Amino acid sequence: MTTVGVVKTRFLDLPEPLPLDCGRELRSVRVAYETYGTLAPDRDNVILVCHALSGDAHAAGIAAVPPQEGTREGFEKSLGWWDGMIGPGKAFDTDRWFVVSTNLLGGCRGTTGPSSIDPATGEPYGPDFPVITVADMVRCERAFLAQLGIDRLAAVAGGSLGGMQALQWAIDHPSDVGAIVVIASTHALQPQGVAWNAIARESIQRDPDWQGGRYYGTGRSPDAGMGVARMVGHITYLSAPGLAAKFGRRLQSGADIRYTISEPEYEVENYLRHQAASFVRRFDANTYLYTSRALTYFDLARDHGSLEAALEKVQARTLLISFSSDWLYPPAASREIADVLTGLGKPVQNHVIDAPYGHDCFLLEEARQTPIVRDFLEEKNS
Amino acid sequence: MTTVGVVKTRFLDLPEPLPLDCGRELRSVRVAYETYGTLAPDRDNVILVCHALSGDAHAAGIAAVPPQEGTREGFEKSLGWWDGMIGPGKAFDTDRWFVVSTNLLGGCRGTTGPSSIDPATGEPYGPDFPVITVADMVRCERAFLAQLGIDRLAAVAGGSLGGMQALQWAIDHPSDVGAIVVIASTHALQPQGVAWNAIARESIQRDPDWQGGRYYGTGRSPDAGMGVARMVGHITYLSAPGLAAKFGRRLQSGADIRYTISEPEYEVENYLRHQAASFVRRFDANTYLYTSRALTYFDLARDHGSLEAALEKVQARTLLISFSSDWLYPPAASREIADVLTGLGKPVQNHVIDAPYGHDCFLLEEARQTPIVRDFLEEKNS
Repeated sequence: MTTVGVVKTRFLDLPEPLPLDCGRELRSVRVAYETYGTLAPDRDNVILVCHALSGDAHAAGIAAVPPQEGTREGFEKSLGWWDGMIGPGKAFDTDRWFVVSTNLLGGCRGTTGPSSIDPATGEPYGPDFPVITVADMVRCERAFLAQLGIDRLAAVAGGSLGGMQALQWAIDHPSDVGAIVVIASTHALQPQGVAWNAIARESIQRDPDWQGGRYYGTGRSPDAGMGVARMVGHITYLSAPGLAAKFGRRLQSGADIRYTISEPEYEVENYLRHQAASFVRRFDANTYLYTSRALTYFDLARDHGSLEAALEKVQARTLLISFSSDWLYPPAASREIADVLTGLGKPVQNHVIDAPYGHDCFLLEEARQTPIVRDFLEEKNS
Repeated sequence: MTTVGVVKTRFLDLPEPLPLDCGRELRSVRVAYETYGTLAPDRDNVILVCHALSGDAHAAGIAAVPPQEGTREGFEKSLGWWDGMIGPGKAFDTDRWFVVSTNLLGGCRGTTGPSSIDPATGEPYGPDFPVITVADMVRCERAFLAQLGIDRLAAVAGGSLGGMQALQWAIDHPSDVGAIVVIASTHALQPQGVAWNAIARESIQRDPDWQGGRYYGTGRSPDAGMGVARMVGHITYLSAPGLAAKFGRRLQSGADIRYTISEPEYEVENYLRHQAASFVRRFDANTYLYTSRALTYFDLARDHGSLEAALEKVQARTLLISFSSDWLYPPAASREIADVLTGLGKPVQNHVIDAPYGHDCFLLEEARQTPIVRDFLEEKNS
């Protein structure tokens, strides 16, 4: 498979302040974005791709340069997080579609977030950054696309938190979204997921180096707490059988235990430490808090009175994909959405892919998602 | 149901040093214990009950007085942790059996552990406490019982880590154990469980107040990290449907979200904070680390070459109970043990109770465990 080639994250400043659900507004919002493929003359081939909690605008291709603000180190020169799905001949075929990917509002990879400078003070926002919602993320994406001269989307697609954004798009802008691709996502995080997210945030906020969120420029940041948050996240993204297949109970040292409390004994322990260390190098703790809170708040039934009332607004064709082993965003939630849409007489496809890698399947099971997504976008099975 | 009445935790000092798997030995081991019922003249009615990670010797009845060493505050005047199972007419019927319960080696509730004074230095052991194993716990229990004049046990029983001790007893002292009751336990923690335990330990050890384990007497202890460790543990002890039934996505404030990052919004978030706060008041962080490590190390197949080789030694009748919704100690492990014992021609019963509360079922599903345990102990269905 070829990639879209070397790409560069670009930046666009919104001309107007962005109003937010919490009642505040953000001045001077910058959006980091990438695009792949060619915009059709009548602008009818645009697909917006929305990323999940720890993603960024670099969804496909090979990153050319590090982005500027909000990160403590540059991008690795690496493939985009959904490169297997976006490119020539891939699920989101860039020979056909103009794919746009932005870093979400509140992010730390180029879009305005808590690590950005507050124009009112000249200092990073930190904990003074307004609390944002998935609807705010969509509002930001909408305002950004308007600057590109794009008012209508052929499709919005995303996994996990990205799928929430796709649903929100279809509800908030029904006549401007042709289709949504909602993968490993839900209309409301289930209570155990609420708990995992709360634990991750607790871990960050209990780290004294978090300093109430005002750690920028202090030379200290809550790496210890962020590391534990990432470990928790990581295990919830994998399935128990997937972990067993990958690591089993293999010891680091081979056959013998070393009788140590503080050093990793099992391979999975070492893996967790590695994951934590690499995450804290590239991600901002406050962005983690804000984004985790936004996905926890997301609740279509609460916002609209009922799931029926929320989905009644949808005009987009809907594709739902979930994975049998995903216990964080279980297939049941997709089925609920599908059932309600069907009951409302709206076009929906619901696919449950039998795969062992848990929530991470949406990033891994490219081969099996590709024909489903391609056919759906081409309206072959709708 | 009546209780065994007001009980007092007692203490016994072992006369000999205790050799350990790691090659070191512990001098001056004290054991905290309680007993319920009456020892038969020929001492043939003794059941040893073994507790899980966060338990203590106070298994039944109403605690009379707080224990002395190793805890930062006394026991609450409260029922024992398995009071529903131990008492007159209960599963472990104290009209029939003499039930003995000890705080495990490495504990913080009266038995020698990392918060105890090292006789060699006059200071608390802290991280100089030797790394212990489940076999060491059993060695300590064996030495303790010898001091009571008890060499043979009618049964050893426990849930979770307590069940591991029961299995270890049957393997290490086959001719001195008549029966074992192994509830919600396993012959080796599954890899996801290894990961959860590692995350909990990381959370404690990354707390700067842990101070490399030398926090005693400093006025600071790793409460923040311990709190997160307990939150992680708590969610793994419950099932996702159980959490959903108990909390759903109910907000603290009723109908409205308050747009706050740092305060609990959902009831389950508040519950987690409460659980964390109450746990750190009663439990020592180093004991958590050592005990978590011991249960992670437990691996009968690794220790004996194979599960068959390990269980070949067992002479005790074996009762296994697991719970359908327990994803930390899933029924599959009990089934494996049962299959191997059956294949070896040894007497075993395996019961899977269909119940929604996850691993915590072993503490909650008393009514359904009671007839199974009673009949097994009376050899009615063996």
